[in-house]
Amino acid sequence: MKRNLNPIKGTKEYLPKESRMREFVRQKILEVYQKNGYQLISTPILEHLNLLEGSEGGDNLKMMFKTIKRGEKLNLKKENLSIDDITEEGLRYDLTVPLSRFYANNRESLICPFKAIQIDKSFRAEKPQLGRYREFTQCDIDVFGDKTHWSEIDLLITAFEAYAKLGFNSLIIKINDRRLINCIIKNAGFLDSQIQNVARIIDKLADLGFDGVIRELRQMNYEEAVIIKLVDKLKDVVNRGIDSVDGDAEVINNLKDTIDIVNGVVHSIIETVAIEENRKIDPSKFYIQFDITIVRGQGYYTGMVFEAYTDDGFLRAVGGGGRYDKMINKMIGIDVPAVGFSMGFDPITMLLMENDKIQFKRSLIALFYENEKMCDVLLAKQVLKQQYDVSIFKKPKNMKNFIDKLKQNGFSGFAFVDTLKINKL
Amino acid sequence: MKRNLNPIKGTKEYLPKESRMREFVRQKILEVYQKNGYQLISTPILEHLNLLEGSEGGDNLKMMFKTIKRGEKLNLKKENLSIDDITEEGLRYDLTVPLSRFYANNRESLICPFKAIQIDKSFRAEKPQLGRYREFTQCDIDVFGDKTHWSEIDLLITAFEAYAKLGFNSLIIKINDRRLINCIIKNAGFLDSQIQNVARIIDKLADLGFDGVIRELRQMNYEEAVIIKLVDKLKDVVNRGIDSVDGDAEVINNLKDTIDIVNGVVHSIIETVAIEENRKIDPSKFYIQFDITIVRGQGYYTGMVFEAYTDDGFLRAVGGGGRYDKMINKMIGIDVPAVGFSMGFDPITMLLMENDKIQFKRSLIALFYENEKMCDVLLAKQVLKQQYDVSIFKKPKNMKNFIDKLKQNGFSGFAFVDTLKINKL
Repeated sequence: MKRNLNPIKGTKEYLPKESRMREFVRQKILEVYQKNGYQLISTPILEHLNLLEGSEGGDNLKMMFKTIKRGEKLNLKKENLSIDDITEEGLRYDLTVPLSRFYANNRESLICPFKAIQIDKSFRAEKPQLGRYREFTQCDIDVFGDKTHWSEIDLLITAFEAYAKLGFNSLIIKINDRRLINCIIKNAGFLDSQIQNVARIIDKLADLGFDGVIRELRQMNYEEAVIIKLVDKLKDVVNRGIDSVDGDAEVINNLKDTIDIVNGVVHSIIETVAIEENRKIDPSKFYIQFDITIVRGQGYYTGMVFEAYTDDGFLRAVGGGGRYDKMINKMIGIDVPAVGFSMGFDPITMLLMENDKIQFKRSLIALFYENEKMCDVLLAKQVLKQQYDVSIFKKPKNMKNFIDKLKQNGFSGFAFVDTLKINKL
Repeated sequence: MKRNLNPIKGTKEYLPKESRMREFVRQKILEVYQKNGYQLISTPILEHLNLLEGSEGGDNLKMMFKTIKRGEKLNLKKENLSIDDITEEGLRYDLTVPLSRFYANNRESLICPFKAIQIDKSFRAEKPQLGRYREFTQCDIDVFGDKTHWSEIDLLITAFEAYAKLGFNSLIIKINDRRLINCIIKNAGFLDSQIQNVARIIDKLADLGFDGVIRELRQMNYEEAVIIKLVDKLKDVVNRGIDSVDGDAEVINNLKDTIDIVNGVVHSIIETVAIEENRKIDPSKFYIQFDITIVRGQGYYTGMVFEAYTDDGFLRAVGGGGRYDKMINKMIGIDVPAVGFSMGFDPITMLLMENDKIQFKRSLIALFYENEKMCDVLLAKQVLKQQYDVSIFKKPKNMKNFIDKLKQNGFSGFAFVDTLKINKL
């Protein structure tokens, strides 16, 4: 009889107040993305295992959920049973890999460039920690089929608008280019085959600090001189900025151009949001800046990468993304340039819940009946529904307790069938 | 290099036009449910296996997706390996079982009765068929903690409003009570232990006809006289209606009362929707009626059961539900009455896509640029965004082809940066 009633370890269930906030976030983001010409699409959670496993997903591949074969396909008596013998599908670990399959599969009927919105769940068997779940929601926008940095600019401007619309009072997007960091790694003396792994370690710089990065590089038994040369160069770029990078001139120019144009336009975007939302916002707190330490974990990035941070009280990134021009090639043998930005749905909602400043359009009230007939109660409900969300309840014996519960659950008032007068909570 | 680019067998991906319709359906349903005082909540897709397996889910249990254990927990070298040895979690097969766990887990902080909305995905490894997918979306409303049939009435009225709001021009809800069908089965001479299975076969009546039901009952080797007595009684009730049922008087009276009150109020609900939506609707096409052949497959139903059908061109049910007063007891040893209604999200969307009559609030246009600067293009976009959803594109070489693609993908116009004049598609 005794059961574990909690949701599965690392997953989360959402009560009414938090669910209402999540729906608010969903609809706000969707509204901004759609206004900017992106189109909602959706792919299945269940995905081909070989696609996921061949996707350069970095550590995410180790954290993948896989389903077992069903019915006769599952033969547990086979000798030397391997994981492949018993697994059928994978649960996607992000929205990017399935989206790429989607694009490859449907490119004939889609516009080029194609601008996609996804708001869907992904799964990673991570160590559970605050604000990070094994089953989590991502909000992504991606552009397929445009190799110019205009797509980066359009994505980033759109992201700024979305965060402002949600009630954020600041957003700093840090931007880098994978080709610059790869170049720095190579110039320090690492081999081509080591670049991916070294980049993955630099990605942890914000958590580990330079000393931690050196430690991890030493653990990999890389040459000491090479490690020191790399870290010195990184420190140099952190101090002196983008002009101290020895990299491809076009890459550097595009990066600078992106930063200039985004910073040039973002103020007018934020000012428009301030008017639309009737809210004071300081546009100078929304900007983009170069940061050589932004790398992103996934191996599939090929160009610019970005991460979004806020001063509003959250230390980890609230979003990020980058360019991944080679992913589609692995599926159909044709290069299709692609770039995406992903908003962290769960941390964003958590942040808004803590600030608790959102005004919802309609308010929920309780309508109490006593000895009235059901049809009269329903007609009374019809009247109040024109203005409120109305939930009917039999008048409780302990009114005080009940009203406390109503408050706790997001109700903002109550009324009785006989008078229909609203009492605020 | 050659990959399968299709989504996994039995799953579906959604292109922009269909996704927009799905989002329309989601928001409309949510709006109606919230207006009626139901509150959105959400539970994880990953669920405790023992909970799912002990849930009387009928055939759904055979179609369950299960995940494999990860890391050291998975020992494939163990002798006499069983499925339990390799499985960790299940993917829920419906929203009702996780919701019951959710209610049991959170009942202290929730209002009683608690009225929940869920719009989420479930998974069943069914044989793929038109409009039925292995990964599918359900829209459920449920009431916990009220044993009176007022909850059924409130649920059903709310469901009628939701279908009308979505653009349906007819809805017939067929209603029955499990206790009546159980009584008929018992009176025919079946044993208590056979009732569940016989009910499951009667549930297929709409597909199999009476002859098919007799055939399946014979295959189970039930006594011929008992089978004939059952089918004769069912035919009698189909012909003569609810008054020919020998069942508990209170059960019958509550069922009649539910039908009377719903039919008494539904007209005014539909007329209100017609005004709100500025659409002609014939309220006489929305009604509820008794149907002894409505059983519902799941074993957990304990009282009234319902299924919704439409004349708008879809033969299978577009929704259904019922009362399940014993489910929570299995988790916490306390009876908590519960009743729910589930809308079929996928068939509803399919139906609306075919009819293609929905007017969306904002329309999507393409903004073409040629040699303008990016910041000028972005400012032009800002202007048009006040009224339209705006997607920027470099002016294509083959305008005619491109415009065909735009139409196909739900765009309704285009403009150029220099004039900003809208050309309709």
